[in-house]
Amino acid sequence: MAAIKVGIVGGTGYTGVELLRLLVRHPQVELSVITSRSEAGKGVSELYPNLRGHVDLAFAEPDLETLAQCDLVFFATPNGIAMQQTPALLERGVRVIDLAADFRIKDLDVWSKWYGMEHACPEQVAEAVYGLPEVYREQIRDARLVANPGCYPTAAQLGFLPLLEQGLINRRRLVADCKSGVSGAGRGASVPMLMCEASESFKAYGVAGHRHLPEIKQGLAEAAGFPVGLTFVPHLTPMIRGIHATLYGVLKDPSDNLQQIYEERYADEPFVDVMPAGSLPETRSVKGANHCRIAVYRPQDDDTVVVLSVIDNLVKGAAGQAVQNMNIMFGLEETAGLELVGLLP
Amino acid sequence: MAAIKVGIVGGTGYTGVELLRLLVRHPQVELSVITSRSEAGKGVSELYPNLRGHVDLAFAEPDLETLAQCDLVFFATPNGIAMQQTPALLERGVRVIDLAADFRIKDLDVWSKWYGMEHACPEQVAEAVYGLPEVYREQIRDARLVANPGCYPTAAQLGFLPLLEQGLINRRRLVADCKSGVSGAGRGASVPMLMCEASESFKAYGVAGHRHLPEIKQGLAEAAGFPVGLTFVPHLTPMIRGIHATLYGVLKDPSDNLQQIYEERYADEPFVDVMPAGSLPETRSVKGANHCRIAVYRPQDDDTVVVLSVIDNLVKGAAGQAVQNMNIMFGLEETAGLELVGLLP
Amino acid sequence: MAAIKVGIVGGTGYTGVELLRLLVRHPQVELSVITSRSEAGKGVSELYPNLRGHVDLAFAEPDLETLAQCDLVFFATPNGIAMQQTPALLERGVRVIDLAADFRIKDLDVWSKWYGMEHACPEQVAEAVYGLPEVYREQIRDARLVANPGCYPTAAQLGFLPLLEQGLINRRRLVADCKSGVSGAGRGASVPMLMCEASESFKAYGVAGHRHLPEIKQGLAEAAGFPVGLTFVPHLTPMIRGIHATLYGVLKDPSDNLQQIYEERYADEPFVDVMPAGSLPETRSVKGANHCRIAVYRPQDDDTVVVLSVIDNLVKGAAGQAVQNMNIMFGLEETAGLELVGLLP
Amino acid sequence: MAAIKVGIVGGTGYTGVELLRLLVRHPQVELSVITSRSEAGKGVSELYPNLRGHVDLAFAEPDLETLAQCDLVFFATPNGIAMQQTPALLERGVRVIDLAADFRIKDLDVWSKWYGMEHACPEQVAEAVYGLPEVYREQIRDARLVANPGCYPTAAQLGFLPLLEQGLINRRRLVADCKSGVSGAGRGASVPMLMCEASESFKAYGVAGHRHLPEIKQGLAEAAGFPVGLTFVPHLTPMIRGIHATLYGVLKDPSDNLQQIYEERYADEPFVDVMPAGSLPETRSVKGANHCRIAVYRPQDDDTVVVLSVIDNLVKGAAGQAVQNMNIMFGLEETAGLELVGLLP
Repeated sequence: MAAIKVGIVGGTGYTGVELLRLLVRHPQVELSVITSRSEAGKGVSELYPNLRGHVDLAFAEPDLETLAQCDLVFFATPNGIAMQQTPALLERGVRVIDLAADFRIKDLDVWSKWYGMEHACPEQVAEAVYGLPEVYREQIRDARLVANPGCYPTAAQLGFLPLLEQGLINRRRLVADCKSGVSGAGRGASVPMLMCEASESFKAYGVAGHRHLPEIKQGLAEAAGFPVGLTFVPHLTPMIRGIHATLYGVLKDPSDNLQQIYEERYADEPFVDVMPAGSLPETRSVKGANHCRIAVYRPQDDDTVVVLSVIDNLVKGAAGQAVQNMNIMFGLEETAGLELVGLLP
Repeated sequence: MAAIKVGIVGGTGYTGVELLRLLVRHPQVELSVITSRSEAGKGVSELYPNLRGHVDLAFAEPDLETLAQCDLVFFATPNGIAMQQTPALLERGVRVIDLAADFRIKDLDVWSKWYGMEHACPEQVAEAVYGLPEVYREQIRDARLVANPGCYPTAAQLGFLPLLEQGLINRRRLVADCKSGVSGAGRGASVPMLMCEASESFKAYGVAGHRHLPEIKQGLAEAAGFPVGLTFVPHLTPMIRGIHATLYGVLKDPSDNLQQIYEERYADEPFVDVMPAGSLPETRSVKGANHCRIAVYRPQDDDTVVVLSVIDNLVKGAAGQAVQNMNIMFGLEETAGLELVGLLP
Repeated sequence: MAAIKVGIVGGTGYTGVELLRLLVRHPQVELSVITSRSEAGKGVSELYPNLRGHVDLAFAEPDLETLAQCDLVFFATPNGIAMQQTPALLERGVRVIDLAADFRIKDLDVWSKWYGMEHACPEQVAEAVYGLPEVYREQIRDARLVANPGCYPTAAQLGFLPLLEQGLINRRRLVADCKSGVSGAGRGASVPMLMCEASESFKAYGVAGHRHLPEIKQGLAEAAGFPVGLTFVPHLTPMIRGIHATLYGVLKDPSDNLQQIYEERYADEPFVDVMPAGSLPETRSVKGANHCRIAVYRPQDDDTVVVLSVIDNLVKGAAGQAVQNMNIMFGLEETAGLELVGLLP
Repeated sequence: MAAIKVGIVGGTGYTGVELLRLLVRHPQVELSVITSRSEAGKGVSELYPNLRGHVDLAFAEPDLETLAQCDLVFFATPNGIAMQQTPALLERGVRVIDLAADFRIKDLDVWSKWYGMEHACPEQVAEAVYGLPEVYREQIRDARLVANPGCYPTAAQLGFLPLLEQGLINRRRLVADCKSGVSGAGRGASVPMLMCEASESFKAYGVAGHRHLPEIKQGLAEAAGFPVGLTFVPHLTPMIRGIHATLYGVLKDPSDNLQQIYEERYADEPFVDVMPAGSLPETRSVKGANHCRIAVYRPQDDDTVVVLSVIDNLVKGAAGQAVQNMNIMFGLEETAGLELVGLLP
């Protein structure tokens, strides 16, 4: 089988380098081009010395003709870039996976409100498939354009889905208390992300409202069949990688066998691991790996359900999930290139 | 005024060394004796080189006669020790502050269930005053025996109190999602607290039930005038010091001016800082300091209230609060020895 | 080609789990047995949740008959264990790689002095090949028994070798100032390795003498052809993985083209990366990878040479190098299973 | 005694906030003004929430008239600012302590080469006293202008001084292998100091040449009475505060009693702690404190001396030493406001 020719637009950020880490070891991928306006001409491994000996490419100027030679283009760009370039690529027969948020929200007014811009290609928003394989696998197979989910939305949706799909909890009273490592903030220079500022401290942010709120609500509403009420509080944790979502819901019937429900829901999922009852998922157990590990609790046998859901925000929460979507789109083994063992310790 | 003669029982743990750090700079304290069965004879500053030049004492064998010379004895011991020795000290006229959990829970059955032992002196439990000055200041003044609150209970109670005292939220649907640095686990050698295990990772623990749950519920029920329903999930955060409590409640009347209510409740409190609306308290802002900083939110103008409450678990959550209680008990300025500025960065 | 049947003795420590991470993805290895006296019967992935879905084995009681079925046995045990069991395995035709120090030092008196025990099998010490492929590749090919080098010795020797092999520096005045992450201390519960003790601090240790000193001196003397004088100071750095060796020597002839000498020395080495002049190797560039990255400097154009050499202590400094040795011993591609990209960020 | 009126120019960086932390608790200081061009008008505690309740000042525009009302002005500015403003302040009778490098190097050509600018006031360079109290205490007393030493130079000089003052080592073969926490890099937004980049990694920098090299050499030459040969390699360590200098020298006479020599040299120094033989100073033992702790070794009884010297780069390496200099200049108790216990854990 011929290798898939892949391009990456905007490869200098953390999702870009993580895509590179995964793709250079993928058995069926040929990395054709990686673009960066700011670093054009520079060797990829000059910027990322971990790639010395693995990647010989240099960053190229973004260029439609070059990208059009690819079978698939990943956008690892800031929000608002992919929507400018995607229509032309689709027209040329190139399939697209956007790791940013341009195609995640179906309601354009909601999108504009949270992202502060007009959308450049509303028709493509309608066409785009939300790239959460555990829900949309069949649609992803044939998609020309996949909107790769956000990191918090991946952890929160995978944790809440079994409860909402089966209508087991009060859908108006959901709480998602989420904690992320600092790599979620990206590689831009900023004072709050300096090691002196972010290490040895813990804080909430975006309490009044965070862009991942409407994305999570859209996914959960889809699962529930009705709109949901959600309080989402993200926090910054002094570590590099990892998201831990602690999810709270009010059970309609506390006698449900939640452990069994979760195990059945994800029995065939290669990257969702429902841990044995009583387990405490650690983010480090998925560091560098594409797994989501989940545990479900009913503390003190009361009517509150607590779900713990962990991912690596750069893998299952970004680049790994994008490769998983690629595998599905191109009919490859879904786990190809993703059989990664978490780095522990 | 004569200095207060102080003894510390069990000074080798982190609350012990933190007590030392505070007491050596306290203007009205004379540190008389510090005991440790395991380290007897060893210089305090051999174990804690940060105290070189500040403390000349050596650890002494625990001995009632020596302790009985003190005006006040702090117990910085594991649970179950203070209850053995406190009655004899009280009888000798020595006042006691227990930093462990022996006297915190009024219901002895509840205490025995969570701590796994029979209580050795039930009458003293009845006599003990719960050392949260923001609620029990007047009783602390005359107390012979003060039960210094736990770290999570301090952060959670200070955050929830204004809402429950005034009956503003549904007291059956409280959620306390709390995150602690690793110093809360103490200085005992254990695999899970190794740096290789605890750094660069995040996890929940004690989800099914944690000893601080009944303590928090007791305090909140006292404030509400009724029993409360609380889901409490503690998490381990990869940093040394600090607790961040994220508290969720369902408002009865979303039109309440929560900011004003919090500011008024704590207007006269020297160690509770209600931050301006929109603030995001960071644990590092209280690192080494006795303050609790609080922010209150109503996200998306909905009926859920979110309170953020941060403390240093070793200071306001342990040794600092103990010194604050000492100051109250002995009629000193409440802030004496506690005018500490958080170490930032 | 038939898979190599591999056994691991003592698989519960960090070198053990790292071996597992590497071997489960190795295309030509069949992991037959992993033993642990303390955890016998427990599933490997219970202890190491990162291996859930990758390893189905349980820890077994150590047993000669089972191990004798293997083609190769790795010892990831404390010092002094491998020397007890190796002779019987060799006799049964099983090849052995010891990741501990039992077979590293040729001079038995020196070994006994530093390791505090009599050696159990002196003949095997004589037979053992020191497993630094960059020096002993040919002997490793046919070795029955390989002594896998220590972590500091790997970083220090690879850094110093070109200078000493060619006699470019004063061999009496070598300084190796080395810094290690905490995983080098292993997974045993100990107070100094608690996160509260080891994070946010930096210290030297073993200044008066460290067990890796004679090992480094033996290797450097072999390279120089004469005994060497070495001051070796190890330090503990607050991170999990990585060693950074900063090496100092006095040049005989400052006009030597050191960059070229290093590049030529390691031109054919798959795992030694001589970085371009002026580079600053970061330990994170090899986190999880088997590479050693080196930069060489002559500061201020003076007669002192400074070599910077970084490895991941658990990979090139332990498990990765052991797999590299296995590949050589069994005639496999030397890089098989080791094409790992460092996890960055 | 009237309080000393103090001004701070450039108070938004880490040395600025550290000065504030020390000065607000200093019994004889009145903080009059703190300037910042970029943050003028903003409350100090808005930028540094640890100061809430301790400092009510707002940042002011820099203004000569206001500063001229002070008895003493600290410059906590980038290099090149203090030299512009110092002459006018001195003329108005204000004494000055510069925490930057403008007045540290006596040789103007050397200064210009390393700092890349012409000096604005050469006469003041000649007048300035180098603010290392352990050497220049008497001159500091009467100084109008004190050049506060750099962080690495403080740790390295205090470690080497006894050896060079007494001519015990070969002054041509000095090695200073130094490790610093990230706060030394300041609070400017930069990619390399992001937590994602700087944590969980270790690297050298400035190997070819670092600005502190000529400063250290100047001080050591002064102590030795002759020029010295020094190789200085700074490293970045993944922690916030602390410098660990590992210093190497070649002894002329290995029979010297180094421990005694060090103890005698620093017997009367309030902030230099020569630890008992065999000690391993940890940077955390001085976290937040003004002490330098030193241990001296002769490994393997050979002719190499190894000195370990630790400080908090923001305290003894910057703000604390500046306050110590202030105390000396104004005839206060040298330890006033500096009786700080290191924060441990």
